[in-house]
Formats: sequence, structure tokens, C-alpha cells
Amino acid sequence: MLPLQFDSTSYLRDGKRMFLVGGEVHYFRLPPEQWAHRLKLLKKAGANCVCTYVPWLLHEPEEGRFVLDEPALDVGRFLEICRDLDLWAVVRPGPYQYSELLNAGLPRWLLTNHPQINARRIDGSPLVWANGMFVSVSYLHPDFLTLAKRWYERILPVLAAHQVDRGGAVVAAQIDNELMGVHEWLGSWDYHPDVTGIGREGGEWPAYLLGKYGDLSGINEAYGLRADSATGVLPMAESEAKSMADLRRVMDYRAFYFGQVAKYAQTLIGWMKEGGISVPLVHNCASPYMTGYFRETVEQNRGRLLLGADHYYNLDLDWDQNSPSPKYASKCLMSMELLRGYGFVPTVFEMPSGSLSDWPPILPNDAACAYALNLAVGMKGLNYYVFAGGKNPPDAGTTANVYDYGAPVSPEGETRALFESMKGFNEFLDRYSWLAGAWQAADCRIGYSLDQSRHPRKLAVDRNMLMPPGESWSFMRKGLLLTGLCAHWSPQWVDLAGSEILERTDLPLLVAGSTVMSAHEQQQLVAFLQAGGNLIISPVVPTLDENYRQCGILRDFLGGIEQRSCTRGAPLATIGDVDGVFINGGMFEFTHRPTDAQVIAQTQQEPTAIGIRLRTAGGGSAAVLGCHWRQSRREHERALNQVLLQSGGNPLIECDNPNVWTMLRTDGTRMMLFLMNLWTHPMKATVRFGDPIEKGRWHEPDGFDLPANSVWCWTPDEGVVFRSDRLLAPGVQ
Amino acid sequence: MLPLQFDSTSYLRDGKRMFLVGGEVHYFRLPPEQWAHRLKLLKKAGANCVCTYVPWLLHEPEEGRFVLDEPALDVGRFLEICRDLDLWAVVRPGPYQYSELLNAGLPRWLLTNHPQINARRIDGSPLVWANGMFVSVSYLHPDFLTLAKRWYERILPVLAAHQVDRGGAVVAAQIDNELMGVHEWLGSWDYHPDVTGIGREGGEWPAYLLGKYGDLSGINEAYGLRADSATGVLPMAESEAKSMADLRRVMDYRAFYFGQVAKYAQTLIGWMKEGGISVPLVHNCASPYMTGYFRETVEQNRGRLLLGADHYYNLDLDWDQNSPSPKYASKCLMSMELLRGYGFVPTVFEMPSGSLSDWPPILPNDAACAYALNLAVGMKGLNYYVFAGGKNPPDAGTTANVYDYGAPVSPEGETRALFESMKGFNEFLDRYSWLAGAWQAADCRIGYSLDQSRHPRKLAVDRNMLMPPGESWSFMRKGLLLTGLCAHWSPQWVDLAGSEILERTDLPLLVAGSTVMSAHEQQQLVAFLQAGGNLIISPVVPTLDENYRQCGILRDFLGGIEQRSCTRGAPLATIGDVDGVFINGGMFEFTHRPTDAQVIAQTQQEPTAIGIRLRTAGGGSAAVLGCHWRQSRREHERALNQVLLQSGGNPLIECDNPNVWTMLRTDGTRMMLFLMNLWTHPMKATVRFGDPIEKGRWHEPDGFDLPANSVWCWTPDEGVVFRSDRLLAPGVQ
Repeated sequence: MLPLQFDSTSYLRDGKRMFLVGGEVHYFRLPPEQWAHRLKLLKKAGANCVCTYVPWLLHEPEEGRFVLDEPALDVGRFLEICRDLDLWAVVRPGPYQYSELLNAGLPRWLLTNHPQINARRIDGSPLVWANGMFVSVSYLHPDFLTLAKRWYERILPVLAAHQVDRGGAVVAAQIDNELMGVHEWLGSWDYHPDVTGIGREGGEWPAYLLGKYGDLSGINEAYGLRADSATGVLPMAESEAKSMADLRRVMDYRAFYFGQVAKYAQTLIGWMKEGGISVPLVHNCASPYMTGYFRETVEQNRGRLLLGADHYYNLDLDWDQNSPSPKYASKCLMSMELLRGYGFVPTVFEMPSGSLSDWPPILPNDAACAYALNLAVGMKGLNYYVFAGGKNPPDAGTTANVYDYGAPVSPEGETRALFESMKGFNEFLDRYSWLAGAWQAADCRIGYSLDQSRHPRKLAVDRNMLMPPGESWSFMRKGLLLTGLCAHWSPQWVDLAGSEILERTDLPLLVAGSTVMSAHEQQQLVAFLQAGGNLIISPVVPTLDENYRQCGILRDFLGGIEQRSCTRGAPLATIGDVDGVFINGGMFEFTHRPTDAQVIAQTQQEPTAIGIRLRTAGGGSAAVLGCHWRQSRREHERALNQVLLQSGGNPLIECDNPNVWTMLRTDGTRMMLFLMNLWTHPMKATVRFGDPIEKGRWHEPDGFDLPANSVWCWTPDEGVVFRSDRLLAPGVQ
Repeated sequence: MLPLQFDSTSYLRDGKRMFLVGGEVHYFRLPPEQWAHRLKLLKKAGANCVCTYVPWLLHEPEEGRFVLDEPALDVGRFLEICRDLDLWAVVRPGPYQYSELLNAGLPRWLLTNHPQINARRIDGSPLVWANGMFVSVSYLHPDFLTLAKRWYERILPVLAAHQVDRGGAVVAAQIDNELMGVHEWLGSWDYHPDVTGIGREGGEWPAYLLGKYGDLSGINEAYGLRADSATGVLPMAESEAKSMADLRRVMDYRAFYFGQVAKYAQTLIGWMKEGGISVPLVHNCASPYMTGYFRETVEQNRGRLLLGADHYYNLDLDWDQNSPSPKYASKCLMSMELLRGYGFVPTVFEMPSGSLSDWPPILPNDAACAYALNLAVGMKGLNYYVFAGGKNPPDAGTTANVYDYGAPVSPEGETRALFESMKGFNEFLDRYSWLAGAWQAADCRIGYSLDQSRHPRKLAVDRNMLMPPGESWSFMRKGLLLTGLCAHWSPQWVDLAGSEILERTDLPLLVAGSTVMSAHEQQQLVAFLQAGGNLIISPVVPTLDENYRQCGILRDFLGGIEQRSCTRGAPLATIGDVDGVFINGGMFEFTHRPTDAQVIAQTQQEPTAIGIRLRTAGGGSAAVLGCHWRQSRREHERALNQVLLQSGGNPLIECDNPNVWTMLRTDGTRMMLFLMNLWTHPMKATVRFGDPIEKGRWHEPDGFDLPANSVWCWTPDEGVVFRSDRLLAPGVQ
């Protein structure tokens, strides 16, 4: 048995639950005589693992000429030192690296010698970035695969020899890097005809269409076309989609493309196995919002790949926020919960520890706050990117000559203030390692539909839908989640398509309803209600299935509900006994509703029902709340609170300050309360919470006085056991 | 003489320089018996002025029925109390109000009874917002003007009677509110054919075209059309512009639209005068980036209108930042400098003092920091929006029933922590009132072209230009300004089209060059060089004039420069002796350059000249730096520093922390140094600066230890005289 295992709860070392704590150290950016020094510092900082890219760019500088054992690039030697220091290692041999390397870490000669592998836009033009930071290949282009495979064949034996089961340090290997990023950020998926078979007789794309729709007439019917052959059916640009038929075409290509990515991942996984890699394989999703794009990759490679995520909050001045704001926290929470929903141990494979930009800066207090908030929302493993700065090899870096990165350890090997933040946080993880086995104590659930996250937003065709799926996905976070957090509810997330939805009918289930919802998900909601569950769906009940065809499974179960957009003067609603609720995203009234439905929400002017509650067979209830809001006001909190209480919700936590967010984590014997002040001003908060183990017992800590930008942890036995604002050594700034 | 005067430096009371300090109190949201109480609190908070909307919505509830002296809406009585308390008043009778009132403060019946006045998109469809917050009228629609004029005729006598010259409180009146906002935010200018005459024989739009191009053939030539008549020439949607000819058509309509707005402003000003308003008239630009849209309004109403700006940093969760970040500060700086460039005293007519959203919250420390940073960048007058919360009249509010606004004074009249921040800041303004007469000590200048700010961004036609004007405008702030501030240069801004450019040839002039620059501005730059000035233009020298026709006035003066886009591997440059400068926006090499030019910048890989310096006749110099960057790295600061030094720059301020920004203000006898830490982490800084009065003398304060999110002020005589982080009374949070 490999020493490092994992399940959906945590990592395990020899069967014992633990946090995976990694730091990125690039052997190729440091002189070999410094390797041991940096790795010792990493150990001193409390990490148990080192991560490193293994750049194809550097190891195959000319086509076919490999440099593997030159001292400066002797990754094998580097891994030996790791082993000698009792540090695990995660190796990331690409093909893609990014890492602020030229061509995103692909060899210089690759596109020069093989321009045919360049990814293509829908119009056939190559997908290129203005400067040398990113190049975009067509993942499954046979010429690219041939060259990438040769690279794997040369580098994998080196890495495999250092695996833990052979007495080495390597506990995991990463395939590629931030899959799809090089297409997404260049503004287009890949439509390379040689790869996708678009417009090619017997090509994959026409074959996919025939597979889905049976025959040409099926395709024509679905897309509203009169094509002569499946081959003649081309994908449609998202910006062109004007009808539901168009939308099918757009979404089919998305799914097809995601499938291509899954196949690429599968190919790399196969090569890894062939190359003797026996340790777990991992991958990092580039950004929380892309998690849903990985569904095919996850499904096709189940049991063979661990998906994690990268959680940056500030990489340059154009980022929304430059500090770990509440917005960032809400995205991290979603990211961790969605990974857990896939069945993975929630891991942040790149946790900001410095930035490629000196300005805006990554600041030690901010970073400590970011680390702690990720822990609060369920993180069980992390890798500080990067732990140590260095020097770019000649003509290989894109952002600088010196790769300083504002890292905890300078290129010269000196520690910086950020080192203290990191070390302090790691020590906390070590001291409270039981948190690795903990889960979030929940008092309600948010049911999500991954389909929604895969919809492009702001399409012309959105106008044909009361509530487009992309809008619902956004409402789930900006409305349901943010309001819920401000009202101190503790939602656990659940995939509407999975079996977990039926596991807890005791907690109210919040769903951001869209006009579109798969038949399966609608059936699941019906089953949940039949099992006695309490559902709150807002703002609309679906009317279409995943193929955009009429599907009223849920609607019919609820006795026939029809809604339409509603404007009655000001966008204000009365929900329960809360007046003046600002419905800033749109209200929906009923054109049909069951006669026995109780009205729970109305427009404030010319009162019209926009929300109803129904008792359903099986003892459950359904609240349909025709309100689409973005968290903005105390009224939102009071209104959601009321709806949840009426749906049988029992809040675990009470807190008098909506600006302080709370999370309660327990492993069934111990518990820890997290308090987050993610603002630039101190916050007082008084909290009481129900014991998640001993029902009916309440804890009432003394009031908290949280400094700006801080996360605190509290336990009933010890009081405050962690303060992110106290991680710096005295005098360090 | 009116007691309140102003010039471009400050406001004056009886000839003495002063700050205008206002607070917004809405009589229509408070019971009349509470008016005096709130106004006394405002005075206690240190304000000298009250501002209020006078909502048409409430005062003409039914068409033709005016309510002016009902106790709850007796604005005259309210103004009497102001006078009795020795508070000045600024009245804002619309027509537009916004103010979270239904229909943006326009009467409910207006669009219902007169749908023909609704603004129109280019396709003729009405411009509408989904909820009742904003309605968009066509400003010059005769039916709207008739009704608005009647409103003015009824309300102005009431307001005029309370002007200072008649013994009352009113010192200024505002026309409309945030002009163009109701078009901009709904995503389209107004194209109402009945108003613009688009497609109408003898209409204003065809007349405008004939005026500009002389005759039909001129129009056809400019637009690449073969129209039969000027009437047949329609505006073009921005998204359709593919060629320079198209761009002319787009930009001509923009200028025409801005001209319509100017005419609307002129109309309202005329009515104000007719209605007996003798005090100054003011208006508030909605957002710093829109300042340039007001050029026609400013020019056509010179001497009759004072333009100020609204400086919010957080109104809901979708704002980029929710605290007064460095980004916000840089936008405020531009806003104040552009207003000064127009000749106005820099005034913030709406300064965030609460928010329409409870969440994200406006926090007292943040707010204090925002006030102080606005002062640092030149603000001479402000109005806290809002000072006191209240209750919306029935069915008139859009965001809530209780208009709490998180204001310094609650709807019930209790003061809150924000009150202390505000009061503390006002007391500082009062104690150091000489700052009202101060200006920024400068060691370089940024020359701006307002034309650039009026260009839409991300047009297809941008691809035909090496550096589109919109990109240059963005580069000026994100590159030149931000890098300059981090390097502690103190730029003063100067309009390239104005005469001030020739006033100071002793300071280096930084210009964000675009492919497009008016012939006049190019001539001005030549004149500046001929007068011995030192110019730094980056990244390109213009090749087209304001009509997108070939124009090489500057280029020819520099001995013939031609540039093209350049990619040589990594986006890294060597500038002077600074290696590895990350040019993240694009590099430009020379296809032609004078033989005597000195190379000052090269691409790092395969070295190619991208920057040159030329001595010019008259003793000046021109540096052409083919670099388009966004501030990100220490190398940017070092490189810009070097170029400025070589252009004769003498930095006034030295500081060892690029994250602490500095501003030095003086009135010729006194001086004050501003230090800004706009980050969420404490910052240490050591500063020395040259005395702006006594040349050659240096001041070396002790090191500063700035808390997170704070602005400090320091004078040689007194040391630290202000800390934004110390404005709260002890114990207040």
C-alpha cells in the first residue's frame, strides 16, 4: 500500500487522517547546491511535501535532444534530496506547465516546427496570444500527441524511479496543467478540424452528433437545419445562438469539447501508467468557475485521477479583488464543495504564496487570512505556489529574469514575512490535525446542477428563457449563498444529479431554479419531496429538460405551476412578514398555481403572488419563491431566514453581525468554530451555536473582537486557538 | 457679490479660500419636525452646506397637480431652517434625481402618459431597464421638455426665493443628475429619431453631417458610402465598426450625442436663469471615466456651469472593489485632475457616506480613508451622500421602504460610527483650511488627450490600429500613472489641447501615445519640444489625426518615425540598464527611425530597438518608448524612473516603499505630505522630500508605520497632523 492515500474526506498517511501540505520549489530555477537549503526551509515551514513542474521546455531544448542529467536540470537528484529530507514530492511534467515560462512551458520549437498543432477558432484561424506567455495547442492533434508521448517516455522513467513504492519521494504526479485554460483565456474552445473532424466525413464531431441524435433527421430536427449530411453540420459560435435549436448546437459542441479534453486526460493517464507511474495522478482546475467543465474528465477517469483546484485571489491589477475578500471566500467555498461533490478530497493545488506581480502585492496578513478561510470552507490539502523564488533559465521566463514571485523565500534564500504566515498556519494544521477528518456541520443544503455552470452567459437566446441557466448559477452564489452566509446559515452542497440528495431529508434544500433542468434532476427533486424533504426553489420551476425540450416533471408534481416575469412598479417584495425586500434581479408571478398553495411572497406594489408554499405527498413541502436577487440588504437575510425556518430549518449558529461569517466543523467528537472578518475594518460579533454532537446543547463563547481581515478559530475547550492576524513573528511586517 | 464664489483653485467665502463641505439630507424622507435636528447634527459634524434632491416624482404626483406646500414636502420651510442654522444649501431639482427613487425620480405618470419620450436604441426600440429603478428619456424630446419646463417653472420660484442674495440658504442649484447615466447604464446612447432627426429630411443629424463635411460627397467620402442624400446616412452601431470610415461614423455620432447633451444642459441652464436662479449652477459627472464625455457641455456652457464628479467605491457586490483601493485612488486622481483641466474647482458632489446596499458594507475606516485620499489628490469640495437616513414616501423608493443607507445618522436620528469618521475629517479640513488654497507640488506632468477617453474600447476596428485610443487612455492610468505613483513621482496633469502645456517646459511630459491624435495636439507637442521641453511618448507616435486621416506632424518633427508591433519571444525588454522589464501590453519596434537617435530600450531576446531618445531643436528631447505595460513589477518602476531622470526629471519625493503612495501639497508658504497605505496590511515607509518652496532644502521625517487602510498627513512644523485610522472616538467601532 502506498503511504499516501485519500478518500473524499481527507488524505491519509498509513491510514491516519492528515493534511497534505505542499510547497512549490522549482529545481530548474535554483542552483543545485541550493536545493537542499530550500527544501530544509520548506520542512522547517511545516510542509510535508514539495511540488515542482518538470518543464518540457527545458528538458527538450531542441527537438529530439533531451537534457535530463545535466546537474542544473537533474530532477532525479532533486527528488533524492527530498527523500533524504523525508519530504514527499508531487511532480508535474506537463506537457503544459505555465509557470511564467515561455510558451507556457512547451518547447520553443514545438509550434515553430509543427504549426499544424496550433488550436483553431471556429473560423479556422489559429488561436494565439499576443505575447509569448501562452501558446494554445489542439490537445488531441496526433502530431502533438506523438511529441508529447516521446517527452513522457523520456521523463517518466526518471520520475518513476523516485516513487515512494520504490523508496523515493514521489507520491503523486500531475497530468498537464490547468486544462482548458489555454483555450478559455484566448477566448475560444478548440475547433481544429483535423482533430475534431468538423466537416470531415466520418469525423468525430459528426459521429458524436449521429451518436446523440440517431440519424441525420434527428440532428436536423434538433438544430432546425436541413443539412444534407451529418458531416455538413458545423458547430455554431456562442455569439450566434438565437434560438433553442441554436443553443442545442452550442451546448453540444461544449460537451463534445469537454469530452475531447477528457480523452486527452485519459491519454495522458494511460501514458503515465505505461511509463511506470504507480502513484496517484492529480490535476488542478484553473479556477473555481471551471469545475463543472471537468465533468466528462472526472467521469471517464474515475478512480484514476484526483481533481483539485487553484485558488488565486490576486495575480495582477485587473483582478476584481486584490485581497481575500468575501467574494473570494464564496468562490473558494463553492470550489471545495463541488470537488467534494465529485468525490474528491478538497485540495488547493495552487494556493497563493506570492504572485507573478510585485504590484498589487501579496501581503502576509492577506495570505494568512486566505489560507485560513480556505480551511474554513473545507480544504484538506494545499500547495503554496511558490515557496521559493529563483532565477529563470536564460530566455525561458516571460515575466522577469529573476523569478522573485514575492515568495516566502527570496531568490537568495532569505525568508520573508510571508514565511512566518505560512509556517504559523502549517503549525496550526499540525496541532489540530483532527480537522483533516472533520466536515462542516450543516443546517441546510444547496442543491446544484453542474449543467448550469457549463452554460455560457449573456447569450442572445437567454431572452427566450425566463431564467437562463447561467443566471441561475450566478444567483446560487450571489443570492442564495451570500445571503445565507450573512444570515449565518451553514449550507452543505449537494449535486442534484447524485444520490446524496436523498440522504438527508431533514435539512431544507435550496435550489437556484432555471428554466432548464435535466429530467433526471427534476426526478430527483420529486423523489426528495416524496421522501418528505423540504424544497425551496427560486426563482423559477424548470420547464425544459437538458435538451431544451418541454419537461414539466417537477412542475406537474407541484400541481402545475406557470410563471412569468413581473414588474409592478418598484422591485420590492413582501416575503412572509418582511416588507421592502429589494428584488434586484427580477420577480416572477404565477399565471397558474395550485389552488391550495399558501402565498408566502407578494410584490409590494399592487400585491401579486410571487411565492407560494405547498405541502407535498410524503410530508414534505415545496416553496417556490419567484425572486432573483443579489445579496445586498438586511431584508434579504431576514426573508431567506424566514423561508428556511418555515421549511423546517433549524439554524446551528446565531450571530449578531452579518459581516462576520461563521463555519462550524466537527469530526464527530471534536468541533471548531471559524469566524471570518474579510473586511478592512474590525468587527465585533456575539455568537452562540448548537453542539453538532450533543444535540440540544448550546455554546456561548464570549464576544469576539476580530481585527480587519482576519479568521479566528474557537473550540469549547480551549477558546480562541487560532488567529490569522497573529501569525507574524513579533516585529515582522 | 454672492458669498460663495469659486475659481479653479478653491471655493471662497467672502474672498477667503475654503472647503465646501456638504451633506445630503432629504427633507422628503424625514418628518418636518425632525428637519432641524438632522441639520443641527450636520452642523455639528462640521459641514457648512446641505444638499438635497427636490424630486419631481413627489412634487407633481399627478400630471399637472403640484404639491409644493404640503408640510411634508415644504422644501421652502426646510431651506428656512438651513438659513436659520447658518447652513448653505445646494438644491437639485432634476428633472432626473436617481436617489433610489422610482423611475429615477421622474413622475410615475411621465412615461405612462407620454411613452413617445422614451429614449431609443439605434434599432428604434425603447431603452428600458428591467425593473423600476431607471427610466430613460430622450433629453431633448419636445414633449419631455414641455413637461420638465413646467416643473421648473413651478419649483424654481420656491427655490429662488431662498437664495443667498435674497437672504436665504441656497448657494447653488444642480441641473439634472449624472447626465448620460440613464443611457450609458442601459447600454446605448439615445437615437430617438424625433429628437435627433436621424433619417429625417432637415433633421439635426443630417444637418450636423453636412455642417462637418460640407456636402453629401464629403460625407460619402468620409464614411465610404454612396448615399443619395445626407438624410439617408444613418449612425452606425459601435459593434458594427470594421473600418476607419465606420469609426468616423461611430465617433461622429458620439460627438453629436454629446452635443445634444450639451444642448439639454444649456436648456436647463436657461430655464434656471429664467426661473430667477442667480446662484451658481452645478452638475455631477456620474463616474470618473465619463469626464471626457462632458467636453461639449463644458465648452458650450463655460462660465455658467460648474462640473464636479461622484466618487463611489462600493455600491453593490458587483463593484470591482468594495474598499477604497489603489485602483479607486488612481481613478479619483484622474477625475480631480481632469476637472481641474476643464478649469473647475475639483469637487466630489457625491462622496460615499453609506451605500444603497447594506452588504457589502461601507465601513468607517474605509470611508475615512476614502475621504482623505480624495483630499490628497486635490478635492476642494465634497458632499457626503447621504448624511442622514430616512423613510421612503409610500411607493416611491426602489431599494427598500426604510432608506437607511448606512448613513452617519440613522433614520431614527441616532449617530453612528461613520458620523465620527466624517466629523473628524471635517475638523481636519477646518483646522488646515489653508489646504483649500494648495496645489500639488509636481515633478513631472502627464499630458492627456480627452479624445482618447471618448473612444469606445474593444472595437473590431481596433485591429487596424497599432495602439487604439481607448487602449492608450487605459495605459495612461494603468501604466504611466500607476508605475509613476509606485516610483513616487508626482505628476500634474495637463490637457494636450490646452495652453497650459507650454507653461512648464521644466518638467518632463509623459504622454500615452495613440495611433490617433488630433492635429492640434500634435502641433502642441511640437511647440512644447520647440520651447525646450522634454517629452516621453509611449508606446507609439500618432499617424492619424482626429478624423482618422494620415497626419504625421509629430512624427515628421521627430525626423520620421515608423513603428510596428513586435514579438521577439518573451515579452521582456531592456530599458536603460534595467533588464527583464515585463511588457505585458505589447512592444513596438521601429521600421524607420532617425539615424542620430540614441537607443534606450530593446527587446531582451534577439535585441531590437523599441525605444529611442532624440535631441530636438530648442534644447528639448523626445523619448519614444515602444512599450505598453500595466504596472506590475519593480522593473517597471525602475525603468520609468530611469527614463524620467534622463528626460531631466528631478524627483521631489524619495520613499523606500512602492506600496505607500505620496502626495505633496503646498500653497506657496506651507506644505503637507500625504502618505497613503491603501492595502490590507500595515506598511512601513521612510520618506525624504524636497521643500517645494525653498529649493534645495530637504525634509527627512522619521520613518512612518502606517496601519492597513490609512492615510496620514505630515508637516515639517508639526509632524503627523492627521491619521484617517484615528478618526473614530475611542470605543466606537
